[in-house]
Amino acid sequence: MSTRIVEIRQNVLNKNDLLAHQLRDRFTAAGAFTVNLVSSPGSGKTAFLQRTLTELLAQGTRVAALVGDLETDNDARRLAASGAPVRQINTHGRCHLEAEMIESHLAGWDPADFDFLFIENVGNLVCPSSYDLGESLRVVMLSVTEGEDKPLKYPGIFHSADLAVITKHDLAAACELDRAALLTNLEAVCPGRPVLFTSARTGEGFPEWLALLAERRAGRDPGTIAS
Amino acid sequence: MSTRIVEIRQNVLNKNDLLAHQLRDRFTAAGAFTVNLVSSPGSGKTAFLQRTLTELLAQGTRVAALVGDLETDNDARRLAASGAPVRQINTHGRCHLEAEMIESHLAGWDPADFDFLFIENVGNLVCPSSYDLGESLRVVMLSVTEGEDKPLKYPGIFHSADLAVITKHDLAAACELDRAALLTNLEAVCPGRPVLFTSARTGEGFPEWLALLAERRAGRDPGTIAS
Repeated sequence: MSTRIVEIRQNVLNKNDLLAHQLRDRFTAAGAFTVNLVSSPGSGKTAFLQRTLTELLAQGTRVAALVGDLETDNDARRLAASGAPVRQINTHGRCHLEAEMIESHLAGWDPADFDFLFIENVGNLVCPSSYDLGESLRVVMLSVTEGEDKPLKYPGIFHSADLAVITKHDLAAACELDRAALLTNLEAVCPGRPVLFTSARTGEGFPEWLALLAERRAGRDPGTIAS
Repeated sequence: MSTRIVEIRQNVLNKNDLLAHQLRDRFTAAGAFTVNLVSSPGSGKTAFLQRTLTELLAQGTRVAALVGDLETDNDARRLAASGAPVRQINTHGRCHLEAEMIESHLAGWDPADFDFLFIENVGNLVCPSSYDLGESLRVVMLSVTEGEDKPLKYPGIFHSADLAVITKHDLAAACELDRAALLTNLEAVCPGRPVLFTSARTGEGFPEWLALLAERRAGRDPGTIAS
């Protein structure tokens, strides 16, 4: 890229970061713990979030979600089935969410009404890593069907995340998952960060996930989970 | 995005398109039919390409491959096991391949030595759609594990492709694939284009794929395959 393009991109990122900091302050003051879910298309973000919303609502926890896609409101409709307030953000070709999209789609919502606000990013293992959305927790998700080498091939987004969630673990045998290789690769790129093995179909890993959310919201660090 | 950014992006794309046209002319004159494989990370591009190279080499067809990733040369090493000449392109954070990367990585190769040149793009269902690499055939790949709705959610890249290849079809039952829904969604976004159901593990769909490549290289259109 030319120097001029790099400079302009840097300005866009600086503007985004500034707004993201303001959003994070607003969420923190309101007590709304905000989680940004990033992954490839088809890693199972929506199924994972749908089960998360349903289980949190069943506990009496107040939750809401914003969901990004280039087109369609399929995911918002799927997530709204949980009973939580959900809004779709269509990026119309943009490959990531930005802080200003979050701000504009909060209109009419009071963050103080939510214990947790989940943001499901556009499916993309590259571009969303550069855009802070004001979240307090960034979760990178990877399905067992995608291959153990993905952390090494997309180090930026894995390194930017606070936590890795492995999805579709019920398919591990069918995909001949090499769990040790996956953990080694994750540890190489994001050392010491928690890894959760989950399945939205069977519920595996959800007790640990919900416990981690509660700990993080309370300001405690539950440390590494998988080994 | 601001008008200024849109303008600069347009200049980058125009420059890319110009070089891509030159590359296509060069490939066509040399008889090297060039194929650009695009998909999400983890859809199985490398496994599919590895089997393709191996089967074509066994037929006595002359093949080569360029493979793009942000980091690592894992894929080049996997593909080189086929015996074909293979070069890795590391984009170091860039979310797509560009024509100038193709040109620079061809150095020392004579396209006239190849019947087919395969380019495996960076795993990303958004950004690669805007960058012509001088290919004669663009193939969008989607694994059965990713969900039937992906063509509707990422219409740009599906619309830009000449052909859709469904991968990991051996996992269709485990993933409860809704084949009719997938075909309906593909038809909505890229009407009339061929769809191939494949498995690099079992070899399903490869006879049809190799026949299609031969037909396209010969300048004939084999039409729709799946229904």
